[in-house]
Amino acid sequence: MFKGLAAFPLTPLVNGKPDEKTFVSLIENLAAARVNVIAPLGSTGSYAYLSREQRARLTALSTDAAGDIPVMTSISALRLEEMLDLADDAQRAGARGLLLAPLSYQPLSQEEAYRLYERVARAVSVPLCIYDNPATTGFTFTQDLLCAVARLPNIGSIKLSPFSDAAGAAAKIAALRREIPATVTLGTSGDHQAADALLAGADVFCSVTAGLWPRDIRALTDAALAGDAAQAAALNGAFEPLWTLFRRHGSLRVIAAAAELSGRVAAPCLPEPLLSLQGEARAQLQTVLAQRDYH
Amino acid sequence: MFKGLAAFPLTPLVNGKPDEKTFVSLIENLAAARVNVIAPLGSTGSYAYLSREQRARLTALSTDAAGDIPVMTSISALRLEEMLDLADDAQRAGARGLLLAPLSYQPLSQEEAYRLYERVARAVSVPLCIYDNPATTGFTFTQDLLCAVARLPNIGSIKLSPFSDAAGAAAKIAALRREIPATVTLGTSGDHQAADALLAGADVFCSVTAGLWPRDIRALTDAALAGDAAQAAALNGAFEPLWTLFRRHGSLRVIAAAAELSGRVAAPCLPEPLLSLQGEARAQLQTVLAQRDYH
Repeated sequence: MFKGLAAFPLTPLVNGKPDEKTFVSLIENLAAARVNVIAPLGSTGSYAYLSREQRARLTALSTDAAGDIPVMTSISALRLEEMLDLADDAQRAGARGLLLAPLSYQPLSQEEAYRLYERVARAVSVPLCIYDNPATTGFTFTQDLLCAVARLPNIGSIKLSPFSDAAGAAAKIAALRREIPATVTLGTSGDHQAADALLAGADVFCSVTAGLWPRDIRALTDAALAGDAAQAAALNGAFEPLWTLFRRHGSLRVIAAAAELSGRVAAPCLPEPLLSLQGEARAQLQTVLAQRDYH
Repeated sequence: MFKGLAAFPLTPLVNGKPDEKTFVSLIENLAAARVNVIAPLGSTGSYAYLSREQRARLTALSTDAAGDIPVMTSISALRLEEMLDLADDAQRAGARGLLLAPLSYQPLSQEEAYRLYERVARAVSVPLCIYDNPATTGFTFTQDLLCAVARLPNIGSIKLSPFSDAAGAAAKIAALRREIPATVTLGTSGDHQAADALLAGADVFCSVTAGLWPRDIRALTDAALAGDAAQAAALNGAFEPLWTLFRRHGSLRVIAAAAELSGRVAAPCLPEPLLSLQGEARAQLQTVLAQRDYH
């Protein structure tokens, strides 16, 4: 299941509680656009700010709304036993993939992270996606650890942290391919550099933007995965004004503001103390949205 | 209340649950040693790995066991509303100080962190200690932000992140003193460099080691706060073998292993997936403990 376009929607909140109706409408839009994986409750879906009950309920709403499209949901939490409980909940709610970051309060050692994946991998019956996100976990995978974890049972994919450039993407992907099982696919995150990473051999576009505008990112993904560099560059170019904001402010606060400004969700949609883009940056985004028509 | 020695004890777990009897014995030992502040449920006390109910219960046990010594407890959590709930709980349980880090999953912006402190500071009736700990929060205070937060109502102290050296400590402390209210004290964390920071003008030693061995750190704190550099150096020297391990492995995993090896807590005492010191490093610690007799 871990191939093509994985779309990561927001979990819009109203007064601190999930706005389920709007959330379902976002999922239905992803299903209609035929993304390959619907990935609610990723970092963009604010999983870390939601209770176990909220996460179980939102996962169940997602699998209902997703139809035949597989749903992957995050099971990361600060404690191992919470992660095991969340894995049970997600599988019961019909998730067909589980996203797991080495989340902790005290950044984990390589050995602690390996044991964490080992314990969870042996406890689940749907495939795991290893989630490498140093910005939120404070944890950096060594190449050796990433390969060792990828060889555990039930590992389906690795969601890699953003590459610095196309050459770096090609080198890292080639190095991983030599070491990991052929059944484990490689995903790229960081929408602003994903076209390069797909052209360099990544299998999955784990996209924040597709959570809001799946059709344009679907076209970009298809072009890049087909190796059509010219078409991919043209489609990617339309997003450059957005990527500039992503690079400067991170994707979450920008996409949340875009969803608010376009009326897709009520403002403010993020969990406190997070704020979507404010002030001058928000005005810049509004200008981008007035000039472009993303779908 | 934020002056002298603040001791940060472990929260020992057995099968993932707080071992309340052992926890209380640690608190009683701190009270008997007449530390100035007992600070359960700091980073060393694994607050981030415990439920709201566990934190409320452990805070109540602490204030009971602390006698006349003030208790400060952490109210950090991933969401603002949890922090407000935890502040209510802690105050009801008799805490006389509240430790607050700009914790988040998505590292906060300077503006988000300011608003967080503003909301909490206006909601509480006992003083807050600002907790600067980039290793666990991913957040770095600018000097301007730290001073702006220190000028909010109900701010009692700042627990600073470790200094790189004595000159850096002196410069940072002097720069802060010029900007913050005289009522806000400055605490130093990072036991391995605390003697230098106290001699350079810090008011509080926020000590991990004192959570286990309060008497020796009490003596070190008193010497350094009295400006007796020779005596402070002598007392600090006795801890150098331990500080070497702190620098290499972080204080939590070392002090947890020390508590396990000395029979003060049952092993393993940390929440999974965290591990206390293992392997060769644990053997080194055992050698240190066999040669030194800390109290």
